[in-house]
Amino acid sequence: MARIVMKFGGTSVADLDRIRNVARRVKREVEAGNQVAVVVSAMAGVTNQLVAWCTELSPLHDAREYDAVVATGEQVTTGLLAIALQEIGVEARSWQGWQIPIHTDAAHGKARIQGIDGAELVRRMEAGQVAVVAGFQGIGSDNRITTLGRGGSDTSAVALAAGLKADRCDIYTDVDGVYTTDPRIVPQARKLARISYEEMLELASVGAKVLQTRSVELAMNEQVRVRVLSSFKDSGPNDDEGTLVVDEDEIVEKEIVSGIAYSRDEAKITVRRVPDRPGIAASIFGALAENNVNVDMIVQNISADGTTDMTFTVGKSDLPRARAALDAVKPQIGYAELLEDPNVAKISVVGVGMRSHAGVANTMFRALADKAINIQVISTSEIKVSVLIAAEYTELAVRALHTAYGLDAG
Amino acid sequence: MARIVMKFGGTSVADLDRIRNVARRVKREVEAGNQVAVVVSAMAGVTNQLVAWCTELSPLHDAREYDAVVATGEQVTTGLLAIALQEIGVEARSWQGWQIPIHTDAAHGKARIQGIDGAELVRRMEAGQVAVVAGFQGIGSDNRITTLGRGGSDTSAVALAAGLKADRCDIYTDVDGVYTTDPRIVPQARKLARISYEEMLELASVGAKVLQTRSVELAMNEQVRVRVLSSFKDSGPNDDEGTLVVDEDEIVEKEIVSGIAYSRDEAKITVRRVPDRPGIAASIFGALAENNVNVDMIVQNISADGTTDMTFTVGKSDLPRARAALDAVKPQIGYAELLEDPNVAKISVVGVGMRSHAGVANTMFRALADKAINIQVISTSEIKVSVLIAAEYTELAVRALHTAYGLDAG
Repeated sequence: MARIVMKFGGTSVADLDRIRNVARRVKREVEAGNQVAVVVSAMAGVTNQLVAWCTELSPLHDAREYDAVVATGEQVTTGLLAIALQEIGVEARSWQGWQIPIHTDAAHGKARIQGIDGAELVRRMEAGQVAVVAGFQGIGSDNRITTLGRGGSDTSAVALAAGLKADRCDIYTDVDGVYTTDPRIVPQARKLARISYEEMLELASVGAKVLQTRSVELAMNEQVRVRVLSSFKDSGPNDDEGTLVVDEDEIVEKEIVSGIAYSRDEAKITVRRVPDRPGIAASIFGALAENNVNVDMIVQNISADGTTDMTFTVGKSDLPRARAALDAVKPQIGYAELLEDPNVAKISVVGVGMRSHAGVANTMFRALADKAINIQVISTSEIKVSVLIAAEYTELAVRALHTAYGLDAG
Repeated sequence: MARIVMKFGGTSVADLDRIRNVARRVKREVEAGNQVAVVVSAMAGVTNQLVAWCTELSPLHDAREYDAVVATGEQVTTGLLAIALQEIGVEARSWQGWQIPIHTDAAHGKARIQGIDGAELVRRMEAGQVAVVAGFQGIGSDNRITTLGRGGSDTSAVALAAGLKADRCDIYTDVDGVYTTDPRIVPQARKLARISYEEMLELASVGAKVLQTRSVELAMNEQVRVRVLSSFKDSGPNDDEGTLVVDEDEIVEKEIVSGIAYSRDEAKITVRRVPDRPGIAASIFGALAENNVNVDMIVQNISADGTTDMTFTVGKSDLPRARAALDAVKPQIGYAELLEDPNVAKISVVGVGMRSHAGVANTMFRALADKAINIQVISTSEIKVSVLIAAEYTELAVRALHTAYGLDAG
């Protein structure tokens, strides 16, 4: 007997047939003797329609009203799934954020969960009733509906699992687990049985969008065991399914490198011939921060002739805003010119085993050199090495690294 | 300065353009110096879609879950209208049933409002904020969303007007008021400036479906002044618009007959040669009541040879259920046969002035006789005379009566 939270996204509940499938999947867990809470998203497409209406009425709409409108998508799914469960003989009840309640701050449209009072849900789950909970929403300190921002249902599920002291949080997605890399690029990619929170975070932040980053952070902080698995595979409850995201300590055989991730969502900016004096970096990145531009990789070359080149990456969609911000501070900073390159890709190797193994970065550089791929920028963290390369080499680089680190399936 | 509740139905908020129209209409009331609460329905078609989903998943779905699903329709409209109002400079805030709260009993799917705590809304309205309230819903004693049943938004509006001690409740519909009869049948039909609650109730119950019956009963009990007017006419705030539904005392020039109503929704049943002994009527109508068949007109002819004929009307859709119920008790009652006639129409003349005028019924009978229309059943109340005739004479009868009572416009 275990207490589990199951989470199904919009494509898994896109129509009544899929909702019936989800109900059958939930029933199997109940019949296996588990206490079950289910977190659901809006039916695919519904949220987009609701957002579009708000935006059409007023581009700068009130976030409190946006939340009232958009939260209805999840509410519909909870009621429909509860009905579908009852129809196949499973006792079930829907729960909105304000009913549980799921307390959040009052930052409408991007609220953060502050606490979940799970007592009533636990009481009912112990009595055999499935709790069908609306994801992506809560109730703010202003007694109004809040939403967590797009993709927030993963976070809802993990927070609920923490609030209910669940044994596991199963996130059903359109993939059947976390892979060593994108199987569309490397057919030999292997599904990982287990991965640590830290690795999952690094993979998520570099573009392997299986779980929302905030949900992984929360799972790490609250020590919630998360399992990623496919909602379309119709097997029974099976502990070998999917990928388990857990504490590093639970991973016995640590791979040096767990996965290769890539992202083509960034653009490279070089500020040429910046006067090399104290405070210059603060001027540049201060201007970007004030304009809400997130900067990722940063490299400053050594100084020559009293000037330096500053290279960094920003989200591709932030490029116009970054350019405008830097144009505005040009007189004050006095740089020579701005170079932009949107045709870049960030390739990352990720693994907790790196901590205890030397030479991981070197293997990467050699593998890329063997394919004559030029490295533009390098950035490292404790469990990750990332490089920036020309976008056209993305697939070649990912395949070469997958082989170099011995990740190809038997 | 007045405090008013404005109510807009589904067709008035069917799309974003119409929601913008509603916002402009509300703005005019605000600019006229009024405190305004707006009650809205779901966008036309939305509720039907949600109901269809529930029914498809489970024909006998849980009413609590049905309520959670269906109440989202109104929630969306409240948020969108609040945004549309803010966009044109009107301070506004959406309110769901559970937020105000609008307390109801726990009879899900057909709940009754038990009380509205209007304090917070009044405070905000006095500060100039428009309250946009979801119609058709409340919060039950079980802390779950309830709905009032189809058409319940009129009742929400009247209850809110009572709770807020509003000076008036303006119900915007697709007609511009209450007419002496259906203008599609009688082009000379006149719009009534005022009508009493009692007359409105009689007109509603005989098929002039301008307002939901329950909302009129509530308005009468709570002495809420209701105005029926068109949401599509784009005139400014104008006290002469529409029809005012008020207490009889407020109507100075009482017409003897205010209107002619008709209904083709009933069917006639005759139980032939029923043994004329005490308790027989109770057996027949007891059997119908047990099977949830509402009986309207009842006529029992005088007895001959120890048997009698019992004639009554039921809703056309209840006919199969009525027949089954009477077939089942035939052995016990011992009647000779059952006659059914679905091709009947009920024609009613309604007016509070009848109380003090003799000969009203006689005028009706003579006008019908002049057109050679046979009267099958007669039923009277204090302010109404109804007759059952063959359905094919409906229009002819309505026109003849409209003329006979002097209702034709100039």
